[in-house]
Amino acid sequence: MSAAAFADRLLRAVEAKKSCLVVGIDPVEDRLPPEVRAAAGGVGAARSAAALGRFGRDVVGAVAASAVAVKPNIAFFERFGPAGLEAFQSVCARAREAGLLVIADAKRGDLESTAEAYADAFLGDLPGTPGPLVDAITLNPYMGTDSMKPFLKRAREGGRGLFILVRTSNPSAAELQDQDCGGRPLYLRVADLVARWGADLEGESGFSAVGAVVGATVPRQAEEIRSALPRCVFLVPGYGAQGAGAAEVRPHFLPGGRGAVVNSSRGILLAHEKDSDRPWQEAVARAAERARLDLESVRTSVV
Amino acid sequence: MSAAAFADRLLRAVEAKKSCLVVGIDPVEDRLPPEVRAAAGGVGAARSAAALGRFGRDVVGAVAASAVAVKPNIAFFERFGPAGLEAFQSVCARAREAGLLVIADAKRGDLESTAEAYADAFLGDLPGTPGPLVDAITLNPYMGTDSMKPFLKRAREGGRGLFILVRTSNPSAAELQDQDCGGRPLYLRVADLVARWGADLEGESGFSAVGAVVGATVPRQAEEIRSALPRCVFLVPGYGAQGAGAAEVRPHFLPGGRGAVVNSSRGILLAHEKDSDRPWQEAVARAAERARLDLESVRTSVV
Repeated sequence: MSAAAFADRLLRAVEAKKSCLVVGIDPVEDRLPPEVRAAAGGVGAARSAAALGRFGRDVVGAVAASAVAVKPNIAFFERFGPAGLEAFQSVCARAREAGLLVIADAKRGDLESTAEAYADAFLGDLPGTPGPLVDAITLNPYMGTDSMKPFLKRAREGGRGLFILVRTSNPSAAELQDQDCGGRPLYLRVADLVARWGADLEGESGFSAVGAVVGATVPRQAEEIRSALPRCVFLVPGYGAQGAGAAEVRPHFLPGGRGAVVNSSRGILLAHEKDSDRPWQEAVARAAERARLDLESVRTSVV
Repeated sequence: MSAAAFADRLLRAVEAKKSCLVVGIDPVEDRLPPEVRAAAGGVGAARSAAALGRFGRDVVGAVAASAVAVKPNIAFFERFGPAGLEAFQSVCARAREAGLLVIADAKRGDLESTAEAYADAFLGDLPGTPGPLVDAITLNPYMGTDSMKPFLKRAREGGRGLFILVRTSNPSAAELQDQDCGGRPLYLRVADLVARWGADLEGESGFSAVGAVVGATVPRQAEEIRSALPRCVFLVPGYGAQGAGAAEVRPHFLPGGRGAVVNSSRGILLAHEKDSDRPWQEAVARAAERARLDLESVRTSVV
């Protein structure tokens, strides 16, 4: 684990690879390529987990040239119990080998001693846990500062990153996140907390280790949050299969195309379904490269 | 898995056992009884997980007569990776054998397809996952209705229960949860959603499968939330080591002492530290029985 600040590592990779693409690894067994499903050994949860792990590791290889990071979503692996968690770890390890940063999409959030346990699990150093294989984690802010402290400590001491849910990309996000709190929406209250949590965690790049999840589907809100958080890296879900195009992620960037990375999951993971004349890995690789170019055309035009 | 509604099963157990006690299983390795740590085999994460599993299973045995449910917090097990998740499942299985309900304290919350995966993991039926061993789960509401749908389906079809974070017991909970949203605090907006989500999920008891987490440390807020949610079971953390006494949980109950269960974790799990003259299991059992009696004196006095 490099102790260099997470934001520095991430943004250096964006410049070096000319890519702000993060590939979300959210695999659903029924939609894996048939040859991956056929090759998995074992039975039941172990078999499903093996297929997911195999697929995830191969996706990493296929997208390594086009993406700066992968974002495996642990829910899709937890679905298969301890064997699934083994598969999750194998995907993270492969990403590390391939020189990709790993963002564990876990959206955890709990009070002090529990947050400490989650921070150990995802940003700790114990072999046999995800910790040593993960660069950053997504977190839920609902329980406030207490629930962040152990993660902030890991960010400070271990060069790890945090992405706090500020305004998510799903339709019902508005129910709570857009509530009017004394003239300002709740998501800006959360942005205030994110600014406070990240205030003394800025790396050489000027960006903080505490980032924000801000959906591609809400460009107007993104503009406000961008103004409130000028030193914060945005992790942007919702591009691709969730409906947003590259143009919608323009407000998430700072001048010079800095300060945001954009996630695509299904648009890349399921590319083989629409592009079935070639080996599935090649279809996935081509979809990742198309997404990189699409996003890069927007990112590099933000002045 | 009984398909009887979760709230019915839980509240029947409260009456039958004369207990509203839930024992939170949040074990920290350094504070396990020395003999449990010494007996664990293996090395590293596997050894730690084995110790946690052994302790958790023995706690279940020790508290089975006094509690209606256990609430293992998965963070403390995830800390030890896949081996930890195995230990978590072994604790849940033992609780089932002992006739206790199992509330998985996971505080998950994510959008549709991810919520589907979490619902499979925790309320599904696949052997080798927590699902078949769990009666209810704690959930975070920040992403709104989308993030609840797959869980609501499990509640409806499988008799499972959900506990939504409404007002938590930790000091910084106020930062977001108490924000004033058009004259009402955010936690009451969340309560409105909880009422809507649970509206058609009432069992024979009249209580919904969709419950609420409402801290013992905030009796004033509990009163308001109780008025807003008259058909909702409250899961009450914060009693005992977090500082609230039995008197503070009075507002969480409905007339007749109905509609709430109260969690104690450290006050019971660490009882052996203060009561070290007897076998640790006996110290734990005595602490659980003391908590039951303490809570029962309040519960039965709510008219």
